[in-house]
Amino acid sequence: MHRDDIDTPAVLIDLDIVDANLRRAQDYADAHGLRLRPHVKTHKLPRLARAQMALGAVGVTCQKLSEAEAMADGGITDIFLPYNILGPRKLDRLAALHGRVTLSVTADSAVTVAGYAGRLADPARPLTVLVECDTGAGRCGVQTPDEALALARLIAAAPGLCFGGLMAYPPRAGLAQTQDWLAAAIAALGAAGLPPEVVSIGGTPDMERAHEIAAATEQRPGTYVYNDRMQMAWGHGTPADCAMAVLATVVSRPTPDRAILDAGSKALAADPAPVPGHGQIVEYPGAIVATLSEEHGAVDLSACARRPEIGERVHVIPNHACVVTNLFDEVHLMRGDRVEEVARVTSRGRLT
Amino acid sequence: MHRDDIDTPAVLIDLDIVDANLRRAQDYADAHGLRLRPHVKTHKLPRLARAQMALGAVGVTCQKLSEAEAMADGGITDIFLPYNILGPRKLDRLAALHGRVTLSVTADSAVTVAGYAGRLADPARPLTVLVECDTGAGRCGVQTPDEALALARLIAAAPGLCFGGLMAYPPRAGLAQTQDWLAAAIAALGAAGLPPEVVSIGGTPDMERAHEIAAATEQRPGTYVYNDRMQMAWGHGTPADCAMAVLATVVSRPTPDRAILDAGSKALAADPAPVPGHGQIVEYPGAIVATLSEEHGAVDLSACARRPEIGERVHVIPNHACVVTNLFDEVHLMRGDRVEEVARVTSRGRLT
Repeated sequence: MHRDDIDTPAVLIDLDIVDANLRRAQDYADAHGLRLRPHVKTHKLPRLARAQMALGAVGVTCQKLSEAEAMADGGITDIFLPYNILGPRKLDRLAALHGRVTLSVTADSAVTVAGYAGRLADPARPLTVLVECDTGAGRCGVQTPDEALALARLIAAAPGLCFGGLMAYPPRAGLAQTQDWLAAAIAALGAAGLPPEVVSIGGTPDMERAHEIAAATEQRPGTYVYNDRMQMAWGHGTPADCAMAVLATVVSRPTPDRAILDAGSKALAADPAPVPGHGQIVEYPGAIVATLSEEHGAVDLSACARRPEIGERVHVIPNHACVVTNLFDEVHLMRGDRVEEVARVTSRGRLT
Repeated sequence: MHRDDIDTPAVLIDLDIVDANLRRAQDYADAHGLRLRPHVKTHKLPRLARAQMALGAVGVTCQKLSEAEAMADGGITDIFLPYNILGPRKLDRLAALHGRVTLSVTADSAVTVAGYAGRLADPARPLTVLVECDTGAGRCGVQTPDEALALARLIAAAPGLCFGGLMAYPPRAGLAQTQDWLAAAIAALGAAGLPPEVVSIGGTPDMERAHEIAAATEQRPGTYVYNDRMQMAWGHGTPADCAMAVLATVVSRPTPDRAILDAGSKALAADPAPVPGHGQIVEYPGAIVATLSEEHGAVDLSACARRPEIGERVHVIPNHACVVTNLFDEVHLMRGDRVEEVARVTSRGRLT
């Protein structure tokens, strides 16, 4: 199939750009002695996860059990699930997954640890549990190195569990504070006889500054596989590094300054970027995707000398690639103008 | 299945509230002599579309061909698709759909009309085309009553097409200006011998003021079936009228003021509401769903006297019901605490 034969709206993935993005990330990790464990939430495609592994990744990161199960089905054998998995249904699924792949998870509370210990209590096959640390991002995680030590002790003492180390999602521009936090925790753990084997950090925007967190042994970037408008605004990548575009058609030109695309919030998602607008139109850099309703994107053309006609097709770099992946049943993997594969997006729409 | 057996995150639909919402809308339309043509984008469920028809709706409204095809598959026989359908692939599908159901569409340009006339030119079975009018919403639509007349003439003159009337999506709090606009267009059309049979208006927030647009013959509300936080902020409904909730689990309580839910932007969507926050937690009215990352919702509990524990499950009324429907493969249709049906959401993830 040719690009011209794809109906809109559709997600197009430029595999040549993906290849370059994956290579660059692995080269960076190798150069700095960091293990790379890419987050697959961005693509949800076993094919790309296998490509990441083939380049040297030590495993993958998933954010939901359903994502991890899909990756195991797709042949991935080492999965890190940095999430507090709670409740009997999910713990049963976690136990089943633990029987299939090399699995590690996180906890930030005694409740979560007790759940793991209660359902996965096989000393012959211990489950590796890392302590999630909030170094400033304000999401999950223990709040102090002392709390990290206390939880590590709890994990280490639980039959069937193995303390695996520390995991953090550093806040943007929070590398120094993350390093200080983790260094203090590592010192406390070392003094207690629990030196962490893995210290895992995440995030694409600062991925090429990960070496500034000297404590880290592993990084988990996700969005770098495609990049997007949000990452560019944060300083990571240029349009030439953006592998994902939403192909859309101009369905209306109600006024000289307005174009309407057949891609709205159900195709581009409403996630804001640090810059105004809901996407960047490759063919019309001066255009602003000003407002989204569900199935329409309203484009402000007032800054454009050249303007699109009704029926014209354009490529929109979305604000946030990961959530766009989650909106489509399938994506078109492109080599130039040729569709190499129409790939089904695994585990989208299954949120547990 | 019982409510307690549903894993999270999940969408729950209270059928008793749905029944009341549907009844109230039909009663309003009947009382004011308006035909009701509900928009199915909110639920994407043939079951609920059939319930709307059984109460007296004259047909349904769909926003995408894929939605219309799913409704035809589900037994709906009268479908209005108020969209500029462009391009050979979609026009072929439109022609096929036209052979199956009573179909009407819109156009706001000569390009769109030419497409319909070129592909659906069967004088024995003309396609009904309404003119989309921009009465202030700033999306698609002709800009003036004169433009509406010119396009109506074009449609009426095209073999195989039938001019069906006018369609508008009034801006919020724009009833008077919409009435003036449509009245002027109706006068011009009448003088030209093209009186519009249907004058269709849309939107839930002002749905019970539709009679203020005296020109309207038909209304197309969608969100009223479930309601949401956005509609409440605009003055339509209370929490007791909200049929949709995202069931979520508290997976972390990192600080006294913070809870983390297992529902982020991939479950609640990032669409903003006119009030701060990303959802309303039924069990904790003082809590604010302050930030969403993809798989986590961070809740500010500082205004709450009582606070949830790790593992506790809560119901979140989302900002925008329609986009939440689009994120899940299935929804749980509830009678009280009992799951009456786990219904597959049709046409989600298929955006063409």
